[in-house]
Amino acid sequence: MTSPAPLRADGRAADALRPIRFTRGYTMHAEGSVLVEFGHTRVLCTASVEERAPPHRRGTGAGWVTAEYGMLPRATHTRSDREAARGKQSGRTQEIQRLIGRSLRAVFDLQLLGERTIHLDCDVLQADGGTRTAAITGAWVAAHDAVAALLAGGQLARSPLRGAVAAVSVGLQAGAALLDLDYREDAACDTDMNVVMTDAGHFVELQGTAEGSAFSRRELDALLDLAQSGIAQLHALQRAAIAA
Amino acid sequence: MTSPAPLRADGRAADALRPIRFTRGYTMHAEGSVLVEFGHTRVLCTASVEERAPPHRRGTGAGWVTAEYGMLPRATHTRSDREAARGKQSGRTQEIQRLIGRSLRAVFDLQLLGERTIHLDCDVLQADGGTRTAAITGAWVAAHDAVAALLAGGQLARSPLRGAVAAVSVGLQAGAALLDLDYREDAACDTDMNVVMTDAGHFVELQGTAEGSAFSRRELDALLDLAQSGIAQLHALQRAAIAA
Amino acid sequence: MTSPAPLRADGRAADALRPIRFTRGYTMHAEGSVLVEFGHTRVLCTASVEERAPPHRRGTGAGWVTAEYGMLPRATHTRSDREAARGKQSGRTQEIQRLIGRSLRAVFDLQLLGERTIHLDCDVLQADGGTRTAAITGAWVAAHDAVAALLAGGQLARSPLRGAVAAVSVGLQAGAALLDLDYREDAACDTDMNVVMTDAGHFVELQGTAEGSAFSRRELDALLDLAQSGIAQLHALQRAAIAA
Amino acid sequence: MTSPAPLRADGRAADALRPIRFTRGYTMHAEGSVLVEFGHTRVLCTASVEERAPPHRRGTGAGWVTAEYGMLPRATHTRSDREAARGKQSGRTQEIQRLIGRSLRAVFDLQLLGERTIHLDCDVLQADGGTRTAAITGAWVAAHDAVAALLAGGQLARSPLRGAVAAVSVGLQAGAALLDLDYREDAACDTDMNVVMTDAGHFVELQGTAEGSAFSRRELDALLDLAQSGIAQLHALQRAAIAA
Amino acid sequence: MTSPAPLRADGRAADALRPIRFTRGYTMHAEGSVLVEFGHTRVLCTASVEERAPPHRRGTGAGWVTAEYGMLPRATHTRSDREAARGKQSGRTQEIQRLIGRSLRAVFDLQLLGERTIHLDCDVLQADGGTRTAAITGAWVAAHDAVAALLAGGQLARSPLRGAVAAVSVGLQAGAALLDLDYREDAACDTDMNVVMTDAGHFVELQGTAEGSAFSRRELDALLDLAQSGIAQLHALQRAAIAA
Amino acid sequence: MTSPAPLRADGRAADALRPIRFTRGYTMHAEGSVLVEFGHTRVLCTASVEERAPPHRRGTGAGWVTAEYGMLPRATHTRSDREAARGKQSGRTQEIQRLIGRSLRAVFDLQLLGERTIHLDCDVLQADGGTRTAAITGAWVAAHDAVAALLAGGQLARSPLRGAVAAVSVGLQAGAALLDLDYREDAACDTDMNVVMTDAGHFVELQGTAEGSAFSRRELDALLDLAQSGIAQLHALQRAAIAA
Repeated sequence: MTSPAPLRADGRAADALRPIRFTRGYTMHAEGSVLVEFGHTRVLCTASVEERAPPHRRGTGAGWVTAEYGMLPRATHTRSDREAARGKQSGRTQEIQRLIGRSLRAVFDLQLLGERTIHLDCDVLQADGGTRTAAITGAWVAAHDAVAALLAGGQLARSPLRGAVAAVSVGLQAGAALLDLDYREDAACDTDMNVVMTDAGHFVELQGTAEGSAFSRRELDALLDLAQSGIAQLHALQRAAIAA
Repeated sequence: MTSPAPLRADGRAADALRPIRFTRGYTMHAEGSVLVEFGHTRVLCTASVEERAPPHRRGTGAGWVTAEYGMLPRATHTRSDREAARGKQSGRTQEIQRLIGRSLRAVFDLQLLGERTIHLDCDVLQADGGTRTAAITGAWVAAHDAVAALLAGGQLARSPLRGAVAAVSVGLQAGAALLDLDYREDAACDTDMNVVMTDAGHFVELQGTAEGSAFSRRELDALLDLAQSGIAQLHALQRAAIAA
Repeated sequence: MTSPAPLRADGRAADALRPIRFTRGYTMHAEGSVLVEFGHTRVLCTASVEERAPPHRRGTGAGWVTAEYGMLPRATHTRSDREAARGKQSGRTQEIQRLIGRSLRAVFDLQLLGERTIHLDCDVLQADGGTRTAAITGAWVAAHDAVAALLAGGQLARSPLRGAVAAVSVGLQAGAALLDLDYREDAACDTDMNVVMTDAGHFVELQGTAEGSAFSRRELDALLDLAQSGIAQLHALQRAAIAA
Repeated sequence: MTSPAPLRADGRAADALRPIRFTRGYTMHAEGSVLVEFGHTRVLCTASVEERAPPHRRGTGAGWVTAEYGMLPRATHTRSDREAARGKQSGRTQEIQRLIGRSLRAVFDLQLLGERTIHLDCDVLQADGGTRTAAITGAWVAAHDAVAALLAGGQLARSPLRGAVAAVSVGLQAGAALLDLDYREDAACDTDMNVVMTDAGHFVELQGTAEGSAFSRRELDALLDLAQSGIAQLHALQRAAIAA
Repeated sequence: MTSPAPLRADGRAADALRPIRFTRGYTMHAEGSVLVEFGHTRVLCTASVEERAPPHRRGTGAGWVTAEYGMLPRATHTRSDREAARGKQSGRTQEIQRLIGRSLRAVFDLQLLGERTIHLDCDVLQADGGTRTAAITGAWVAAHDAVAALLAGGQLARSPLRGAVAAVSVGLQAGAALLDLDYREDAACDTDMNVVMTDAGHFVELQGTAEGSAFSRRELDALLDLAQSGIAQLHALQRAAIAA
Repeated sequence: MTSPAPLRADGRAADALRPIRFTRGYTMHAEGSVLVEFGHTRVLCTASVEERAPPHRRGTGAGWVTAEYGMLPRATHTRSDREAARGKQSGRTQEIQRLIGRSLRAVFDLQLLGERTIHLDCDVLQADGGTRTAAITGAWVAAHDAVAALLAGGQLARSPLRGAVAAVSVGLQAGAALLDLDYREDAACDTDMNVVMTDAGHFVELQGTAEGSAFSRRELDALLDLAQSGIAQLHALQRAAIAA
């Protein structure tokens, strides 16, 4: 998968992540607050604890983890409309926030969480491709910090976290499989896949789309190999971040 | 993949599709109108031709293919709210209609289509799992009939269809990979994947979700094998339907 | 009222209904599910039983019957916008569904129904004029089947249905009174009236509109005579349908 | 139809209108501005001229007449929600404003009006039954004044008004037919009918609803007789008002 | 502040109010109903008593006073859109109704009011500048009448009103400070300030905006002097109105 | 105005600002991007240039400056609902963004700006009182940077900025006038005033509200003095920021 000469605009190897950074405690009010950076993509992920479960969980003893996603109007190259002003969230926004919620619930024992809700807010301050994968990866660190606060405060005796979850994008450009696409690469790729995995090496979500021509099983296998190796690195970076 | 004794409630083998039926010309006004049935799931797919392109395509010489999805309130076991009465489409509805639109565009040469729009309306009359995969598979037949009408009417000289597209769901239940899940199986599965492919054997969309525990690469590979064989059968059934 | 030579495009006499058909059990989940056809007009009417009354009836011992109406986007000659996508129901839709609800409540003893709700969903699959009158006429059959299910299941000891209700349109075209207008006739008529009656021969609703020139009392009387005779035929057809 | 002893709370005979009053020039900005009173019911009707037609009329040379209806929150016995605050107009509001618009268009020659729009705004300041019939009757006077202004200003050479239109409610209470129902009578009636007629004695709209038990053809005929006589009086009052 | 020659179109002195009129009991259903006129500006202010507090006050023993503001479509020179039809209140409307609510609460002892709500509806029938100041000034008289009804009816033993509140606009036109601007003056002014004060001579709200060039502290002081003297007159007129 | 012993929780003198910081170039896509901090309050202000004017300015040769305001859900002590998810902006949000827009337009020569639009987006990342005054003060720096880019790029020959604008809050707590209130002070104050001024020492906006008891003219004068001195300091800090 490595190439003799770098084929990417920023000089990265095909199988290299962008520089990844987690800044914990980025804002002061939330139980967990993490700025996650995947290269120029910057997403503020906060985890807020609410001491009651949503209606569909009440009386079950179990809690809930949910996510919302937003993009500041000028996080992008050209300004996009503010969703609050337009009066509704786009289909894209809803797809992404549903994906983040499912991904995080995959590593939560909701029974152990008890009848409370963790709200994950992922707001993109600056976008350069991969905002949803950065959001999932950063939201996990924010969720971890919120859980740590609940353990420290005695509201929880045991952690409801069963493991870590992280996500990365992969794509096919002119036949080559690339890891962690930036905005220009994402636009240029024929196929774009977002992969979410646990630190136990299992898949949580897989969303592949052929933007240009459809892709073969062989190409799919190459993309999956690349995603697995990239996510393993992200899990190591998450572990380093929470140990800091 | 075959099992000595049937493990499914309806007696199907693990790798068998439900009975599939296409009824063309189901309603009289649309250029293409197909009732597609995947077992008890029944979706009315109409293709409507509009002789102008949407704003973002005007002046480019190219057209557009777009989809909308709906579910009659009592298509389901218990009545669900009417989206028109609630005043908005759910995130699930938007996700599905975006998926149908992308899947169909994958086999259209939009330049050859010219500055017109094909609207695919997929309305679920009766739901028993797999409504989105039935919708994609049926919408292709409806789109084919609308294209045939344009060719017959002389509006098009060459077909903009580059091939066929079909979709199926696969899932893991207690470790076993099952093809074309009905509602009860879908609810019982740990993992649910929707796969969209062309009749050239390539992938267009892939959406896998671990509802219960995450799934391994080996399990993923088994699901992909199963989906590929199921979609090949669907393509044969589509060909038979349009030849009728 | 009969004419020596047929004056209608489809060869019908001025006082003849279109072919009427009721298909019971059209879909499988609803307590009552009827496809009603008035010529080319096809409306799917489902009756769903909810075991609680709406807020304004709770604690009164009495129930409620309510209706919603929709039109598939391509039920019509040219595709119309999907109301769920536009985010609101049109004034026309609301008028029609309020009319259907009032018409059906006219033959229900809501006290005998008890604190439950019957939701009537009338969705037009194919439109060729008279969708609201077909919807009322078909919804009554669906409601009958839902009541029969409640009686069979022991939830009700006595039927809350006090009789049958049916509806038809009449219109004046070039001075002649026509029964059961199809789309082209409806557009060509100077006056259009929808009449809803019980099988006891009484009026429930009457909505007449002069689209072109206003109409005289004599013309009104002729339209009422024609509607009365048409509705008597519809009641006979309803009786035959539920006896089948 | 007259009764030996008055049977109505306000001492009116069964076939008597409430005191009717038109105050022209009630507000200063509108081309026509009329406060109409039917007893305690008070509706402000303004006619505003816009010098262009709505999109569906442009280029046809013909104009349009349209109506909107509103009720101040405390026009009623108990305060009702403000529709602007709730974010949508109720089905009832839409039904009424569509009725007013159709009724007024029935006496307009839209070709003579030319490519302009007359907006009729009917806002209920105080409600005591019959707001829609008062609105139609008052809106005609406002429309007349706006047309007079156009004629006086030279924008129109000939009046596009082909006659007058007025409306009244009738109802059946304990078998007796009553003219021009107030709020309490309206609530007590088994049947409520709104009738709209031209001063040529023809019907424009007819909307009858059996609130309690269905009504016979004989009862319907009595109601129509009563409405015809009441509307004749209203037309005389309209003529007197515009002559003042 | 007085000028040798009148500089205002209507001949008023710079420090003179327009003719002010309060008509109590303007409509019959509301507990308080006042038509307030500031020159040609006419606002109907009703006070409606609801015998329960809004959710955020329940169980506190204290009540609430809230306001809504609306403008009839043709209250203005040219017709404006109906907010109920557009489906939302403008930012301007919301600003004004929040201002009215805060202003009235400033003179209410909400604890003495008890767990009930007073809804103030201020609807502009005719606009000629200063609608928000007229609304506040008239709403106080309506609120007073509603309180008097509660005292008379024994629901309240002591008045929760701690005093009166009134409001006026002031502006700078070509360097001169003007009191109580009409529409044309408001449009011509460089600075527009709305001032709300109690009859104890204290400020409740102050909202100044430089429409053209910014204003100096000296100009601000002159505007405040003028507003204070105008509001003192309004308080005298309110006292006279409730004594009538 | 200084106090012998500090009376504020953070040890500030009554007439002292919180630490103020401007970080220019905070994000990379916007023409101007400034993180402004007033103590713990942090607002990201971006200025985006659009090369066309809004509809109401087209063809006039003049441009427009407009603002939008938002608050991340967990910018506050407890999480608040996301406005995009609720489907509308609150009245408070609209009030604030209208205030920011007016304030910035006060220092722009819109004719010199030409037919283009500057969009100011002010998004609160962390809130501790004074978000609207920080937003105005920071938005001016962002607008300055966007103008500088237009001058550097040759789109503008002369700066349309006529000066600087800044804002601060002042309040009365137990009779003492305090400058630049943080969240707790804001909640505790009887009166809260937001003042916007130009660097020429003139007022642009003034919004004072008596939250508790109304305030006297003498108290108002003290607040205005304090605001004037605070804003002079803010202007010096803005000048330093753009010189950096």
